[in-house]
This record gives sequence, structure tokens and C-alpha cells, in this order.
Amino acid sequence: MADFLDSEFEARFTSAQTAMAASGMDAILLCTEAEIRYFSGFRTQFWQSPTRPWFLVLPRSGAPIAVIPEIGAELMARTWVCDIRTWAAPNPTDDGVSLLADVLSPYSKVGLPMGEEASLRMPLRDFYRVQEKSGVEFLDCSNLIKAIRMIKSDAEIALLRKICKIGSDAFDNAADIFHAGLPLSEAFRAFKIELLQQGADDVPYLVGAAGQGGYGDVISPPNDMPLQDGDVLMLDTGASLQGYFCDFDRNFAIGHATDTTKQAYGRLWQATEIGLQTAYAGARCADLFNAMHAELGGGPSDVGRYGHGLGIQLTEYPSIAVFDETVLQPGMVMTLEPSMTISEGKMMVHEENILITDNEPVLLTKRAAPELPIIS
Amino acid sequence: MADFLDSEFEARFTSAQTAMAASGMDAILLCTEAEIRYFSGFRTQFWQSPTRPWFLVLPRSGAPIAVIPEIGAELMARTWVCDIRTWAAPNPTDDGVSLLADVLSPYSKVGLPMGEEASLRMPLRDFYRVQEKSGVEFLDCSNLIKAIRMIKSDAEIALLRKICKIGSDAFDNAADIFHAGLPLSEAFRAFKIELLQQGADDVPYLVGAAGQGGYGDVISPPNDMPLQDGDVLMLDTGASLQGYFCDFDRNFAIGHATDTTKQAYGRLWQATEIGLQTAYAGARCADLFNAMHAELGGGPSDVGRYGHGLGIQLTEYPSIAVFDETVLQPGMVMTLEPSMTISEGKMMVHEENILITDNEPVLLTKRAAPELPIIS
Repeated sequence: MADFLDSEFEARFTSAQTAMAASGMDAILLCTEAEIRYFSGFRTQFWQSPTRPWFLVLPRSGAPIAVIPEIGAELMARTWVCDIRTWAAPNPTDDGVSLLADVLSPYSKVGLPMGEEASLRMPLRDFYRVQEKSGVEFLDCSNLIKAIRMIKSDAEIALLRKICKIGSDAFDNAADIFHAGLPLSEAFRAFKIELLQQGADDVPYLVGAAGQGGYGDVISPPNDMPLQDGDVLMLDTGASLQGYFCDFDRNFAIGHATDTTKQAYGRLWQATEIGLQTAYAGARCADLFNAMHAELGGGPSDVGRYGHGLGIQLTEYPSIAVFDETVLQPGMVMTLEPSMTISEGKMMVHEENILITDNEPVLLTKRAAPELPIIS
Repeated sequence: MADFLDSEFEARFTSAQTAMAASGMDAILLCTEAEIRYFSGFRTQFWQSPTRPWFLVLPRSGAPIAVIPEIGAELMARTWVCDIRTWAAPNPTDDGVSLLADVLSPYSKVGLPMGEEASLRMPLRDFYRVQEKSGVEFLDCSNLIKAIRMIKSDAEIALLRKICKIGSDAFDNAADIFHAGLPLSEAFRAFKIELLQQGADDVPYLVGAAGQGGYGDVISPPNDMPLQDGDVLMLDTGASLQGYFCDFDRNFAIGHATDTTKQAYGRLWQATEIGLQTAYAGARCADLFNAMHAELGGGPSDVGRYGHGLGIQLTEYPSIAVFDETVLQPGMVMTLEPSMTISEGKMMVHEENILITDNEPVLLTKRAAPELPIIS
């Protein structure tokens, strides 16, 4: 039933305890889906409901403490977490505030992710109340958490490998699914069904676009326009398996493609190739960015980023960006995602998912074709 | 392309401006997916990525201002929002902080949802920086936002009606999809595919359980256990269409059901019937709770809640709970969701989606069968 053995969670927790000791924190407070799942194994889509806050406290010594709404008690009891304290939520006058403050009050300095990529998934008003009632000092522990989550275990890598294979197998059937005349919205729907049939649990992320020789943005839901001869169709999917994501895209030409389009595709494919040749342990994310950016002709590097970490979230730390000094380490799972502008309002993007190792990087996705596939 | 006419968004914004004036706020700051989508029409699954913060500022006078990462500029430009200010995100030293502070600094009192059901989807560290740099005072505007979102427009109701019909049509095919021997995880996968085939855009929420004569909890992902004769299978789905949710469940007996199980089902069905007889404009949520609770035998009312609002989130304000004094008004879309414990560790839950009107409530879901359906 559990996604991992208890020993996996014990190892994650031990890493957090070691880091807490090194940084002078007495405990860590987590309130977000990914972090609570990472340390407890509590996996549910019930996070879709914004009504109830959920908390996990990781003490520097002792066992983790779940402070959660009663409705989650049975599911939490199936995880490795034994100390579960519940309240009848929602409670408009005290929605876990007193219970959480009591759990925190023995501590002095409590870590809370407050930096890049962090959110506070509880009412800010209640956070202030917990702060006041518990008397603890909150310190940012974003980097501590990121450093642990960034390095994937063998069990995590096995899941990521599976979901990347599922995504690759689904894209292999593209020619049977997509065709001129198919409304883009129906192409999306058909591809979601294909991903489920290939074994994905869910498709929390499917964005993309289709346009003559390229597309305008890469985060949109589909419109109902039929695919047309000369379109480049791009689908970028974050399908999930036991809560682990793939995140990669594929481009297809419908009917035919111009030489300009084919060349743009080829350059992006080649930039990814350079990425693969650079993504060795010891290189910095900035090195990886610079290598791909040079291959794409250089120029101003405010293009954003060319990839990111991948795991229990569609995008995780670090960023493959000019500013990111993070050193690649074995066990990191990353996306390589170079993009380029073809003309005003037209762009193209490629993406692969890789594992950093002691040796050369391992592709988790089936490498995209070196030439733009044409669906006729 | 847009989900609604500009006039729909103008009406929402005007309501917010009127409420701001009444409560002495100069502007409202929004940073969460549902709120930004509600007021701008900006709809994307890109929220799956935690990397970048997004902001929408609603001034008491003047037009809305989107303060967003450059990657979202094109999609935001297709909404009714015209004033779009972007930065190259992620930026580890200033991730929109200065830009947002500049936009806010002309104001004195700025509303921010900080109460029940609210989250702060930005790094807390950056929130403190914005607070300091802008010099504004933040006030809780949760209730103001809830009061507006709670009443659905005709266009919203039309979408909610459609997605509830899609869910109902999918459940109508239950006997063709589910059977003894089918692993629960495969039952979930097949039902997600069915929902997509019926026309859902996505299935962000599907939870459920199967067990002999009842089930233990109602928020779990599936295990791989085959459905067995005597199981009650419950599926609770939040499928979505253009970002609007249904949220209801259905129960099915596999092979046969005991009299105890059939009676429990019948009592819940009857409690929902009482809910339908009580859900008139003018009644309070607490009245609705009390009527259903009495039908289920009364007793301690710490059972949580028997339903909630429904719309662009799986669960929205208000709660059908003993503490909720919210008065039902025409245009509110609610779930009726009575639940009962059958025996230690066994429960059952029913759910329907309804529209509150000037007259009797309108079922958006196809009413569940009065007797437990048996799949043989």
C-alpha cells in the first residue's frame, strides 16, 4: 500500500535531522503537499480542497508528529508516521492553531520553508496566531529541504523511470492519435486517455499548442481549432505515477514542415545533445545553461531557464539557469528544456528527462527523433 | 478562447470594487490560482510548477493589474486584463518583489485573503519584503472574496451543469466498467478514461474505496486489491470542465449486499432527500446540517460537515456544518454530502450537487438511485 518502505522515510527524516542539527533548528514545520508527502508518505488528491490545513512537524530528536484534520487520520495511520494528532476540521474559531502551537511550544527555533518555490498553505492569520501562541522563532529552511529532496533514492528513480517510459510509450503512438482536422482540445483529450492506458495514474499537467511553423506560448490549455497542414503540434506532459512526475514534450509537424521549421527543430535537438554532453556530476547548473545557450547562438540570457529538477512535483529545484550555481550530483533527476524564438510570436521548445550519475547522464525519456517527425 | 465574456469579469471586478469601498480597502492583492483565475480568466495548469509566484492587483478605482512572470504574458494578454507587468522569472534575488511593491505602494490599505481556506502562494520571505518595500497595510479580505465567489453567474452555472452531467453520464456506465475481480486501481483508471470520453477536460480528483459492507476512509488513492463479492465500491469524483468542478460520489455493491448495508445506503439517501427539502434560499447552512443530521439519528455533531460550496475549486466556502451561519442565496452551488458510520472503521457517504434558486433547489447531478445499485 505505501509507496516506499519505512526505511526510505527513515533515511529522509535522518537527513533532515542531521541538517537541523547543523543549522541550529530544533524542529521543522511543513504545511505543503509535496513536503508533507515526501517526509510522511501521506498521498491523497484531497489537497484539491483548500478548506483544511495540514501540518507535519519534524523534531531534531524524536519522531515526526502529524497534526492533521480528523478526516485524514485513517490514511495517515497507514504511513510510517505513528504520532498523529487530529482535530475536527474545519473549525472556524481554532482550525488546528492551538493543537499545532502546543506541539511547537517546546521548541525555540523552528524551520519553515519561506524561500524560493515555497508557499504557506495555511491562512496567514492562523500562521500569525501559531507564531504568537507557540512563542517559537521561525527560520527559513528552504535550502535544507531542497538539498535533501534534490537527490533521489533508487526507489524514487525507479518510479521516475517508469513514468518517463509511460510518457515515451504514449508519444510513440502519436501518429495514430493526431491528424489534420482534429481539434486541439480533442488531441489533448485523446492523449490524456493514451497516457492513462499506458499506465499513468493521472495527468495533472498537459499543456501545448499548435501553430504554423511554431507556437506562441507553452503553458496554455487547448483551444478547439482543428490541426492544420503545416502546424507544429507541441504537447508537454506531466503525467504521474504514485505521485512522481515525468515532464517532457514532443513536437510533431502535421502534414509537412518548412525548412526553417525543420532547422529550428534540429538546432534545439542539438542543444539538448550538448546538454547531455555537459550534464555530468560536478558541473554547475549555470554551466549546463551556458553550454546549451551557446549552441543556440548565445545572446541575452534572459530567456528564463533551460530545465529544472523533477520528482514529486512537475518542477523542482534547481533551475538550469545562468544564475544557478547548484552543482550537479549523482541521483539528481533533471529536465533539459532548451527553447528558442523562431520569429515574432513563434517559438519552439524541446525537453528530455535525465538522471545525473557518477558517469554519463542517463536518459529517462526515450530520446526525441533528431529530425522533426511529420504526421501525414 | 476565453472561458467567459469580458462582461462577466467586469461584473466580478465591479463587485470587488464595491466591497472594497465599503470596507475601506484601496486595493486587493491575489496570489492564488483560484482567485487569480476568477478575476482575470487566466487558466493554465502551469500552477503545478511551484517555481514562480503570480500576482493580480485589483484597485478600488482603475483597472486590474497583472504582475506576472514573462512566461505567462502571452496567455494573460488573451484575457480581459490589459495592464500586464512582467519580470524574467525565476529571479533568485528579486522574484517580482520590487515590481509588485511598486504597483502596491500608491495604496495604503490592501486586502489579502488571510482567513479560512486561504493560502499564501508566494515565499513568506518575499511577502515580508513586499510588505516592507511597499509600506502598505494588509487587511484580511477573505470574506469579501468569498461573498462574491459564492454566488454563481448564469455562465458559471451553465458550466457546472455540464460537468455534473458528464459525471452523471459516466456513473451511468458503472455496470459496464466495474466487476468483481477488477483491481481497484484499474477501476479508478477506467473511470478516469470514462470521464474524459464523456467530455471532461480533466479529472483532478478521484478518490474512493471498496470494502465489505462499507469502507474506512474517503480520501485515499486506490490500492491494487481486486473488487470482491460483497464489497461496497464508492467513487468520489471531481472532474473538471473549463476549470469548473463537479464533486459527487456514487456507491455500488459488487455482487450482493447485506440488509445492513442496504439500510445504511437508504438512510443516507433519505438524509439527502431531507437536504433537498431544506436547501431553500433563506435557510442557513447550519439549518441544512441540522436537518440532515437529525434524519441520521442526531447525536454528537462533531462529524465534520455535510457538504460545501462548489465551483472553480473542488470545495468552496461555505460549509454545511453546525457552526456555519451563512444564509443560502439563489445562485449558490452546493454539495449535499451526508455521511454515517456503519460500524467501527466502516462508513458510507452520499453526495449530490445542487443549485440554490428562488424556489426549490435544482439537482445538477442525476439523483442517485434510492436503493443501493448492485453490479452483478
